[in-house]
Amino acid sequence: AFRDLFLELHPMDQIDIFNDLNKDQRQKVYAFLSPKEFSDIFEDLEVGDQKKIIQELEQQYTTDVITHMYADDIADFLGEMKDENAEEILKGLDQDDAEDIKELLSYEEGTSGAIMTKEFISVRSENLVKDVIDQLRQEGPDAETIYYLYVTNAKHELVGVVSLRDLIIANPEKQVEDVMSTRVVSVATEEDQEDVANLMKKYDFLAVPVVTAKNKLVGIITVDDILDVMEEEATEDLGEIAAARGATDVNVSPIKAASRRAPWIVLLMFFGMITANVIGQFEDTLEQIVLLAAFIPLIMDSAGNTGTQSLAVAVRGLALGTLEKKGVGKMILREFSTGIMLGLLCAVVLMIIVPIFYDPNVWLAFTVGISIFFSLSIATVIGTIVPLVINKLKLDPAIASGPFITTVNDILGLMVYFSIATAMMDLLL
Amino acid sequence: AFRDLFLELHPMDQIDIFNDLNKDQRQKVYAFLSPKEFSDIFEDLEVGDQKKIIQELEQQYTTDVITHMYADDIADFLGEMKDENAEEILKGLDQDDAEDIKELLSYEEGTSGAIMTKEFISVRSENLVKDVIDQLRQEGPDAETIYYLYVTNAKHELVGVVSLRDLIIANPEKQVEDVMSTRVVSVATEEDQEDVANLMKKYDFLAVPVVTAKNKLVGIITVDDILDVMEEEATEDLGEIAAARGATDVNVSPIKAASRRAPWIVLLMFFGMITANVIGQFEDTLEQIVLLAAFIPLIMDSAGNTGTQSLAVAVRGLALGTLEKKGVGKMILREFSTGIMLGLLCAVVLMIIVPIFYDPNVWLAFTVGISIFFSLSIATVIGTIVPLVINKLKLDPAIASGPFITTVNDILGLMVYFSIATAMMDLLL
Ligand SMILES: [Mg+2]
Ligand SMILES: [Mg+2]
Ligand SMILES: [Mg+2]
Ligand SMILES: [Mg+2]
Ligand SMILES: [Mg+2]
Ligand SMILES: [Mg+2]
Ligand SMILES: [Mg+2]
Ligand SMILES: [Mg+2]
Ligand SMILES: [Mg+2]
Ligand SMILES: [Mg+2]
Ligand SMILES: [Mg+2]
Ligand SMILES: [Mg+2]
Ligand SMILES: [Mg+2]
Repeated sequence: AFRDLFLELHPMDQIDIFNDLNKDQRQKVYAFLSPKEFSDIFEDLEVGDQKKIIQELEQQYTTDVITHMYADDIADFLGEMKDENAEEILKGLDQDDAEDIKELLSYEEGTSGAIMTKEFISVRSENLVKDVIDQLRQEGPDAETIYYLYVTNAKHELVGVVSLRDLIIANPEKQVEDVMSTRVVSVATEEDQEDVANLMKKYDFLAVPVVTAKNKLVGIITVDDILDVMEEEATEDLGEIAAARGATDVNVSPIKAASRRAPWIVLLMFFGMITANVIGQFEDTLEQIVLLAAFIPLIMDSAGNTGTQSLAVAVRGLALGTLEKKGVGKMILREFSTGIMLGLLCAVVLMIIVPIFYDPNVWLAFTVGISIFFSLSIATVIGTIVPLVINKLKLDPAIASGPFITTVNDILGLMVYFSIATAMMDLLL
Repeated sequence: AFRDLFLELHPMDQIDIFNDLNKDQRQKVYAFLSPKEFSDIFEDLEVGDQKKIIQELEQQYTTDVITHMYADDIADFLGEMKDENAEEILKGLDQDDAEDIKELLSYEEGTSGAIMTKEFISVRSENLVKDVIDQLRQEGPDAETIYYLYVTNAKHELVGVVSLRDLIIANPEKQVEDVMSTRVVSVATEEDQEDVANLMKKYDFLAVPVVTAKNKLVGIITVDDILDVMEEEATEDLGEIAAARGATDVNVSPIKAASRRAPWIVLLMFFGMITANVIGQFEDTLEQIVLLAAFIPLIMDSAGNTGTQSLAVAVRGLALGTLEKKGVGKMILREFSTGIMLGLLCAVVLMIIVPIFYDPNVWLAFTVGISIFFSLSIATVIGTIVPLVINKLKLDPAIASGPFITTVNDILGLMVYFSIATAMMDLLL
């Protein structure tokens, strides 16, 4: 009875229960459920949990569980295991499946090849609609999706696509050729997963076929996996802006969280020591007009904020592909113009406020105003150029993180501020 | 011939061409294409473009175009128009459609009701599988998706779901009741769109039914619209962290970009003037030890970086719903512990480095070290609590933006630093 109730639940709800069980209870589940039934749970567990669970299963049961999973999910799991353990599991599978998975494992992470799966349905253009529907009855239970069928020729080249919707509506006696669309959009195996997500978002597809350089159909990517890609890319971009890359997970201990974030904080601190040097250089100027120190945070923060805004625009534009369309040169120019306008605005505000609230000497207000104008103008350019250069050079984009840009802008801003103040010393005293 | 070639293209590719046309050329397209054909282009244009185009169309053509669109797309378009213009267009539609759209327009933005559509297929549990497939042949061309059919009873209550995949595989003589699943997951009309996205991501659905408080089926949300929701929410979160909310669009002029961002920058600058006051209060301390100014940026930046990391964790946790699971109290405690560890680490590093490179007086190093320890510990808590409070009070989360938190942390950090320095004055001189 419990078994039936449990199996009535959606696999994701089964997982919620399963995750709360202790080791003894889990052993009962393995005894209760057939490998096929347990595979519905196993395939959707997080990889870390999968690794833990696999050690509790008998070898034959493991192999049977794996056999019932989709190739992409098997590859994701095996990709995270030690090579010898992965080899062991692959040996248990039948040879065709094992080769499919080895193929998937061979693609670089973050590309189409690494997120696609092999369980697609392909048909021939000369097939009759009714025969294809019969074929679906056979292959349907094993395919990732039966809603798009891909039409291939004798050379396994992709020549068309037909949706189950079109098939259902069509005359059963017609040929696939008559109902298929030849304007089939496909992606290459090495395509960036983020570009695939943007493509699926644009065309509203439920799946997209993946082809080799010679247009041979080798897999499909389904929209459920694209939802995961979008989550992953959004997390990556957020971490990038906050210098918390790979450290935004809420489910880790304080020590683990600290150890993941510490490298960034310490690295940034070392880099930030340059600011102490810049100010140290101008110790004489400061000694004469101590009030100059009061505006250090204001100039730094304003430049930091403006630069971070530009960074957000660039990161978002890179992610959505809108920036390439607009053109990099135009983008930098736009941000620079924006920075000049923001700088002018802040300069005017400060030149009015500083004499009223801080020091009647208008030359101090002038110094602060001019400094903020230059700082903001430069900050937008730095905030735009750094992520673009990083992206162009295909460097690790973590270097382009918000705090790095902020520190660069701080250094430049302080140099501008103290240089102007030193030059205007006579007027300021 | 051009007409045929053009219509061969996917609507999204037609849009790419259409967007490059001038007014005369567009007029030719309207003459070329039937309202039904043009509706495929029109429905996927951006709302701003839709508003522009509608002024070039004759009234009857407009009505015919709109008639061929899905209800959710019509509602999105009309929602952005002036009330009287929307009324005018609604008058042209048949009464049932107009009422559907008025219903959709009545839901609050960002909820299920506002993103769902009305073109779902519902069947009765006593229907035969083969009859349902016949029904699909009729209704299929107009439905948003035919891959999930929702089973309702006489009171229009949702009682089950059956996928087209299950129907195809099933014996055609069976009743829907025998093949449907009763474990149907649905969402309420007022559910937050981000929660719907997380649900679809979890269950890998292609569509989810929307029900009233009385479980009456009133609409469906399809996965293609969820991809757009995820993009929108990711943009929102990024803008939030960078104080660039609603201003990350690459396709606006510098003046427009500046005017959208200026309020944030100026507001933050006013807020940041508190930092100038804090330093001004300690002018005496500074006058005696000018070198103290050199470490202002370092302390500020480190606190800012640590706080932004905590913010990124909180924003991501709120977006993915993982934070609620973990518990808010636990989260704050974890971040605080993390802050203490990061603070200790940075303090130790500074106590070693400052005497070597800056000033042999170890008390200066001690002051800077202790200050950074307290600043970082506080910064993590502020970075976590502010977005949580904002979220709890359902305030506009833009207030929780990174720069605001950074400014708060700057003020606290400077107060700690100068208070400690003032207290230790005798040792520092
Ligand atoms: Mg399964
Ligand atoms: Mg899956
Ligand atoms: Mg994979
Ligand atoms: Mg779309
Ligand atoms: Mg998959
Ligand atoms: Mg990315
Ligand atoms: Mg990427
Ligand atoms: Mg659509
Ligand atoms: Mg809507
Ligand atoms: Mg929202
Ligand atoms: Mg999923
Ligand atoms: Mg829609
Ligand atoms: Mg959100």
